[in-house]
Amino acid sequence: MIGEVPNTYVGQRFTSRRLAHEAGIHRPLIAGICGVKKNGAESIVVSGGYKDDEDYGDVIIYTGHGGQDSSKNQVSDQTIDDSGNAALVTSYLEGLPVRVLRGAHAGSEWAPDEGYRYDGLFRVTSYGSKLGIDGFLIWQFRLEAHEGTLLPTRVQQEELPTDEGRLAPTDAGNVPAGAESPGRVTTTVQRIVRSSAVTRQVKAWHENRCQICALRIDVPGGSYSEGAHIQALGSPHNGPDVIGNVLCLCPNCHVMFDAGAIVLSDELTVIRGGVESGSLRTHPRHIIDLNCVRQHRDRWRA
Amino acid sequence: MIGEVPNTYVGQRFTSRRLAHEAGIHRPLIAGICGVKKNGAESIVVSGGYKDDEDYGDVIIYTGHGGQDSSKNQVSDQTIDDSGNAALVTSYLEGLPVRVLRGAHAGSEWAPDEGYRYDGLFRVTSYGSKLGIDGFLIWQFRLEAHEGTLLPTRVQQEELPTDEGRLAPTDAGNVPAGAESPGRVTTTVQRIVRSSAVTRQVKAWHENRCQICALRIDVPGGSYSEGAHIQALGSPHNGPDVIGNVLCLCPNCHVMFDAGAIVLSDELTVIRGGVESGSLRTHPRHIIDLNCVRQHRDRWRA
Repeated sequence: MIGEVPNTYVGQRFTSRRLAHEAGIHRPLIAGICGVKKNGAESIVVSGGYKDDEDYGDVIIYTGHGGQDSSKNQVSDQTIDDSGNAALVTSYLEGLPVRVLRGAHAGSEWAPDEGYRYDGLFRVTSYGSKLGIDGFLIWQFRLEAHEGTLLPTRVQQEELPTDEGRLAPTDAGNVPAGAESPGRVTTTVQRIVRSSAVTRQVKAWHENRCQICALRIDVPGGSYSEGAHIQALGSPHNGPDVIGNVLCLCPNCHVMFDAGAIVLSDELTVIRGGVESGSLRTHPRHIIDLNCVRQHRDRWRA
Repeated sequence: MIGEVPNTYVGQRFTSRRLAHEAGIHRPLIAGICGVKKNGAESIVVSGGYKDDEDYGDVIIYTGHGGQDSSKNQVSDQTIDDSGNAALVTSYLEGLPVRVLRGAHAGSEWAPDEGYRYDGLFRVTSYGSKLGIDGFLIWQFRLEAHEGTLLPTRVQQEELPTDEGRLAPTDAGNVPAGAESPGRVTTTVQRIVRSSAVTRQVKAWHENRCQICALRIDVPGGSYSEGAHIQALGSPHNGPDVIGNVLCLCPNCHVMFDAGAIVLSDELTVIRGGVESGSLRTHPRHIIDLNCVRQHRDRWRA
C-alpha cells in the first residue's frame, strides 16, 4: 500500500521493527526499503545503517541498498537496478509518497531517542550516484517531507529572493500569530507529479509512450510520462477523474494540451494551431470519452 | 512587485481601494488586474464585478478583463491578448504568485463584510474560454491559494482515492490534535513551477527556446520553458542558484537532464546515453559554470 496506512498517525512510536511491520508502516523486518520497481517504494527505514546518509528533518539524503558486508561496511558498488533502489526511482518518476520510519541511532538529531517513529510521507525529489565514504559507488535519494506532514520540529525554510534579488520580508512583528509567511518558499523549478490509480493505469497501457508525439522518455532506472486530464479537474471545467478523461502524454505535449496549443477532433485527430497533424495513439482498452474531448476543444474555441 | 509586499499580512483589512493601493497590495484604483504580459499579474481584485466569477475560498474562478459596458454587462467578447488577461497567462506559465484582494459584495461567502481584505498569494492553475452568462466569450482563470496561505476558513480538501480506488482513511480519532492528514491531497497531475529572478533571466535570454533541442512551446497568450539547475539545489548536490548553473530547457529535456539521461561535456556537447548529439545552444551573456556541468556529469557517472 502506497501512502497513508489506516489507523496510524504521524509521530506514532513503535518499540520494534516487528510492531511497525504489524501496523503496516514498514512491512519488511530487515530490509530498509520496501517496494519494487513496478510499483515504487512503499516505505523506508532511516536508522543509521548507511554512513553516507544525511538527515535534516524535512529533508533526508538516503543511501540506496546494496554493496555492504555484514559489518555494514561498503565493500562493492551499488546499482540503480537493485530492486529497492529502482523502487525509489519509480517513486521519483511517479511522484509517489514514501512512508518514512526513523529508528534510534546516534548521529542524527532527528532520530527518536529509542525505538522507531513514523514520520509521515515524503517524496523523492532527486537522485544520483557518488563515491561514498568507503570509496564505492553509492546511489542517493533526496526525500522531502510532504507538505502538511508535521515533524517534531521543522527545519528552517530557505529564504526566497524577491524579484530584485533581495530577501523577502520576514518581519514577524507584522504577521498575526499563527499566520505563515507564504512567500518563503524555495526557488527551485519543481515538478510535482501526483499520481492516481486512474493515471497510472493509462500510463501502464501506453507504457509511458506519449499518445500525441510517440516519445517515451527513458532515464536511468525507469521511464517517464504524465497522466493528463482532457477535461480539467475542478471548477470551472469539472472534468471527471476517470480513465476516459486521461491521456498518457510527454511533459511537452502535456503543457501544449493544457494550454490549448493542441486539441483533438471527435475522430481523435491531433490539431495543432488549427492544423491537423496525425492521429492520437490509442490502446484497445483505453476508451476515450468524447464529451471530455469536446469540452476541452470548446474551452479553447477550437 | 510580484509576491509578498513588505509590511502587509494575509487577512489585512482596507476600507478603500486607495488604502490597498497605498499599501502596495493592488496598485490600480479601478482595474481589477494589475500586471502586463511581460511580467505577469501582480494582483487581482475579487469584488463581484463579473457575474461569471465563482469563489470557493481556496479556489477562485476569475473572469478576465474586457467586454463590459459601464453597467458591467458583457457586451462583447473578451480576448486573451488583453493586457490584464495576458498577464494572468504569464502568471500561469511562469508559476508566479498573484496577490488576491477581496472586496465586499453580495453573492460570495468569502467576501469581507465591508471594505477589502488581502487574502494572500494564489497561483493560476488553469485557464480557458467559454460563453459567459451574457452570451459573449469570456476567459476564465482558476486561481488556487498558495500552500501556507491562511484563509479565515478553509474549504474542505478533496479526498484522495488510494491505490485501490477507495477513499483514504480519515479517521480523525487516531490523529493527535494538530496533526494534519498528509494523504488528503488532490490527485491531479500538477506542474508547479517556481520561478526566481535567476531562472527568469536565463529564460528571457533564450526566449523560452530549449538549449538542448531548440523547441519553443508556444501556447495561446505566451510561450513556455523551464529554468533547470545543472547542479541541483539542496543536499546532497548543493548547487548554487546563479545564472551559470541554470539552463533554459523544454520540460522533456528537463526531465531527461534531471534524471541523468542527458549530460554535458566540458565543451557543452549534449551527450545522450553516452552518445554525443549536438551542441548546447548558447547566448553570449549566459556564461555556464563548468564546475556545475562536471558535478552533474559525475552525479550520473557519465
